Order: sequence, then C-alpha cells, then structure tokens
Amino acid sequence: MGGKVVVALDAMGGDYAPAETVKGAVEAVQEYSEIEVILVGKEEEIKKELGKYSVPSEKIRVVNATEVINMGDVPTSAIREKKDSSLVVAMKLVKEGEADAVVSAGSTGAILVGGQLIVGRIKGIKRPALAPFIPGKKGFSLLIDCGANVDARPEHLVQFAQMGSVYFENVMGKKSPTVGIVNIGTEEEKGNQLVKETYPLLKSCKDINFIGSVEAREIPQGGADILVCEAFVGNVILKFFEGVAKTFLGCIREGLMSSLRTKLGAVMVKPALKGLLKTFDVSSQGGAPLLGLKGLVVKAHGNSKSAEIKTAIGQCIAFQKNSINEKLTQMIRDGGSPE
Amino acid sequence: MGGKVVVALDAMGGDYAPAETVKGAVEAVQEYSEIEVILVGKEEEIKKELGKYSVPSEKIRVVNATEVINMGDVPTSAIREKKDSSLVVAMKLVKEGEADAVVSAGSTGAILVGGQLIVGRIKGIKRPALAPFIPGKKGFSLLIDCGANVDARPEHLVQFAQMGSVYFENVMGKKSPTVGIVNIGTEEEKGNQLVKETYPLLKSCKDINFIGSVEAREIPQGGADILVCEAFVGNVILKFFEGVAKTFLGCIREGLMSSLRTKLGAVMVKPALKGLLKTFDVSSQGGAPLLGLKGLVVKAHGNSKSAEIKTAIGQCIAFQKNSINEKLTQMIRDGGSPE
Repeated sequence: MGGKVVVALDAMGGDYAPAETVKGAVEAVQEYSEIEVILVGKEEEIKKELGKYSVPSEKIRVVNATEVINMGDVPTSAIREKKDSSLVVAMKLVKEGEADAVVSAGSTGAILVGGQLIVGRIKGIKRPALAPFIPGKKGFSLLIDCGANVDARPEHLVQFAQMGSVYFENVMGKKSPTVGIVNIGTEEEKGNQLVKETYPLLKSCKDINFIGSVEAREIPQGGADILVCEAFVGNVILKFFEGVAKTFLGCIREGLMSSLRTKLGAVMVKPALKGLLKTFDVSSQGGAPLLGLKGLVVKAHGNSKSAEIKTAIGQCIAFQKNSINEKLTQMIRDGGSPE
Repeated sequence: MGGKVVVALDAMGGDYAPAETVKGAVEAVQEYSEIEVILVGKEEEIKKELGKYSVPSEKIRVVNATEVINMGDVPTSAIREKKDSSLVVAMKLVKEGEADAVVSAGSTGAILVGGQLIVGRIKGIKRPALAPFIPGKKGFSLLIDCGANVDARPEHLVQFAQMGSVYFENVMGKKSPTVGIVNIGTEEEKGNQLVKETYPLLKSCKDINFIGSVEAREIPQGGADILVCEAFVGNVILKFFEGVAKTFLGCIREGLMSSLRTKLGAVMVKPALKGLLKTFDVSSQGGAPLLGLKGLVVKAHGNSKSAEIKTAIGQCIAFQKNSINEKLTQMIRDGGSPE
C-alpha cells in the first residue's frame, strides 16, 4: 500500500451523519496527502452530500451499505443481524485488507463488539481496550480502558499497561512513558481487590515504566502518561471530565455575559480563556483507538462534527506509519517485551 | 441535652492542625449559638492556640489526648494501638454520650475504621457510607459512597440509597429526592456486574424515588439528588472533581494574569468568576458525614482551614436537629421505610 493510509469511514455513524461525516472525510483528504477515504453507507445520501464538494475521485470513493445501526440497538444482535450496515461493511473492508482502519462515531457498544467479532483480536491479546487521550496541564495522558469490557481481571490490566506504553511511546514520541494505576490512595496497600491484585503484577512487569498509584485528583495535573484502570472507572472518568468541562465553561460564559461590565472585560480576557477552552475540550480530541485488534478501529465522539471526524481520520496515519499493530503483535510474541 | 449540640473536634487532625482547627472551633461557637466544642488533643498546644482568642469557657473546653494518628499510619492498627490519640478519645466521647458528634480532618482511613469500631453501626446497617455533597449547576448532589468500604455488594448500595434519601430529604428540605445510580450508559442493561445486579433492587425499592442510571457526564449538571455508587468509583469522582476544578481555576487565573490587557479585563470579570470559583470548590463544602453509625462522625477535608472546620461543625446542627440517626434507625426497623 506504500505511503498511503486507507480509512473506511462509517458515514452513517454519529449525531450529525452523513452531512458532517462526509464533510470530515473531504477535509481529511484535503489536509493529509496520505489519506484515502472509503465512505461506507447509504450511497444515494452520501453522494448527495459529496456533491457539495469538489474532491478527486481517487481520494474518496463510496461503498454502499443499506442498513444503519442505531444507538438504541443491542450491540451484539446489531452486529450479527445488520450484516449490510455501514459499520459492519466498513469493518469487513479492514478485515479483508481493503482498508487499513475504520473510523466510526456510531454506537460505542456496536464498535466494540464489531471490532472483536469482525476485525478480530491480535493472537495473545486477552481483551482489546478503548484508549482515548485526555488533556491535562502537562499534556495528554492515555486513559486505558474506557469501555471495551467491564469487570476486567488483573492480567487484562497488565496488558492494557503494555499496549498503552507501546502506543504512547510511538505516537507521542516519548521513550519509556510513565504508567500509573488509578487508585483511591497512593500507598501500595490501598485500593479495591482488583487494584490490589494488579499492583504487584505491574510492579514486576519489566517492559513498562510503572510509577505506582495515581489518585484521581492528580489526573488533570498529568499524574502519569498512561493511566491504567478498569473500563467502568475509565468510562466514568472520561465522561465526568466531559461533563465538568462543559458545565464549567458554560458557567464562565454565562458569568462573562452577565453584565455590561463583564462583557467589556470579556473582550479583553477572551483570547487567554479560549486557549483553556480548547485545551480541556475532551470531545475535540478526535477519536480513541481500540487497541489489541488486527486492524485499527477508531471510535470518534458521537457528537463529532467535521473537524473531529477529520482529526480521527488523521490519527490513523501515525498509527499506521509507526506500525503499532506489528509492535503489539511482537510484544505478545516475545512474552511481553515490545522491542 | 436540650437545644445544644456538642461537637468533639479532633484538634490534631488535618494539614493545619492545631492552629486552624482551634480557630475553626472558635469561629463555630461565635457563629452558631447551639454549638459547644470539646477540643481533643495535646492540651498544652491547644491551650496555646486557644489563648489567642477570647471565648466563653462554657462554649469550648479541652480534653487532653497525648497521641496523634498520622496520615502514614495503618488505620486499623492506629485505632487499636493509639488509644490515647485525639481521634480515638474524641470518638469515645461520642460513644459515651458526652458529645453528639465528632469532626476530624485527619486520616480518612482511621476515621472510617474508628467510626465502625468505636462509635459502632446502627443495628441493621450493613455498612456505613461516606456521603459528601458535591456541587452542580442545579445545586448539590449527595455522592454515596465515597470511600467507607470498597467492593460493596448490591444490598449495600440499596441501603446507601435509602440512607442518602433520608439524609438529603431532612438536611436539604426536599421531599422525595431523586436517586440515580452512577453508570456508563442510561439503558437498564448497561453497567458492570454490581450495577446490573443493583439496578432492579433499586427499581423495586418502595421508599426511594429511583430515576435510573446517571451517566458521569450528567453529574455536574445535577443528574440526581442522590448519586449511588461503589466507594472506589465515588472516591474517584470526588477526587477527580477536586483535581479538575483546581486545574481549571488555576489555568483561568494564569490566563487572566498573562498580559496587561487580560489583567485589566480580569478586574471587570472577577466578581462574576468568583461566584463560579466558590460554587465549584469541592473542598470548601465543610465535611462529609459517615452515615449509618450510632453517633455522627464528620470527615472534613485534610487541607481544611478554619472556615471549613467551622462549616463542618455547623453541619452537625442540622443532622442533630433533624434526628437523622433516629430516622435511619426507624427506617431499618420498619424494613426499609423511613417514615
């Protein structure tokens, strides 16, 4: 495939599909020369949207899929029964090698199930993990796992730490990134049963840079590069962050618009606060990869507009160019050591 | 005891003890006419601090305790071995009926262990729960449990919901407050094993106003009056909130001070933002009660200054005047129904 990266985009997934997904695909091929997009979904609707832009046909093509998986569908049944849905067809393109990656802003549950059933796990990986970057004061931390499978066991968390380290090191270009386990205290004996059992395993794991427990209070300050946790906890952190950021920024906006005096002041402080707003906007970070699968599966936020879709597509380049999956496969083959 | 409320204050607990604890006690008796404080700890040190203020001796007295439980001490051993520590002596005052409540900004672990071993559980209560109020856009929510005992079972969570409802209704004066379970999705089949098993129990519990799952994203918007969760999750939410608020407000402050222009603007917007700062300052909410014990035990934040200690002491009035413990006892006796 040379230097190009082919992304199958679930054109029907997300709150603003297909208008914003198609627009995001167009913006992606315009911005990234390596990218080619296959738009998967209802051909007629997609072509109508695509007609609004002028793009070279060798960069974007359409593959028809007549069904759509809705947010209310039960994930397992949806993947099994809606065989001609945009998500299933897009995932099959990855499985068959026609695309390098699939990006979807659709149902998280369906993406997780489809990723495992259609794309399949890397041999030796016990569970794939959803691993978004979350913003902090010192930069980004990788929060793993955020929702692939709840009620994980200690050995799963160790693999999350290993996969997260390989991914972070290659994508962020930082040697030996730090790994912390999300905990309710910093002492080794603190935690619930899962954390207490996982702690010594992480401590004795040679191919990660484990720094111990990270209290939730330290996360926004950049407690560790990779934050390991069980999916329920990760999902709560991710969504709570989103909620707090939204509420805070909403209140700030209201506060600034509350009187003539504050409005005048707002004009002067706005540029400084805009940076903050951008830094902590969790939803604008593109997408989260589902690590541990034979192909790349990226989950974009459900309310993604074209900018987020574009970013999520662009993310696939670094993943592909750094051969993340080859490195994960090798790590498992070598019994845990990624290099 | 009439209208008065006697609070045993662990004068040696917290980052700024005994200077700020003593100061907080003085401020409390000045502000609340019903309050009497027993300062428990190293008599000499306490009296030195107390000498700085002029307070009527019938409002504040000192009970000597020669030992101090440190943050590094293992809670169970500390409670068992340091029999003359300020926390243990203060709790004994409650057990023996000399005080109505104990307030401590010391080690959370020791407070939880001491509460159960010394003050004791209300008969029928399976587990006490730490229940702080957290701020949201629409007001306060009670987050229960935040750290009393991790790895809870479904029947514990149901009692948390019941105790939280009684407490919220009486202290906030809201009839039939809403109860939600913290979850990673809003559908009934979503969640980890614990949440899935707890959901139907809450649904069929007649004496609470259960409204279903609340996603973490909705918490800052005021998803429910009472948010039920397992202690590990609750503790993560509470501390993460604290961390995010601190980081956000720090960044805003930096942003506002970054140039002459923003500094001028800051003068104009400051009053409006100050309200926000106050609303979302989790650490200033006084203390969290440990619900389900025979006496009132309030955990104040470790970094409490006099203002927070004063608020935590003041909280005891509403708890006492509303006979929360009598109502909890009755609820258990009546098989779940609090009225």
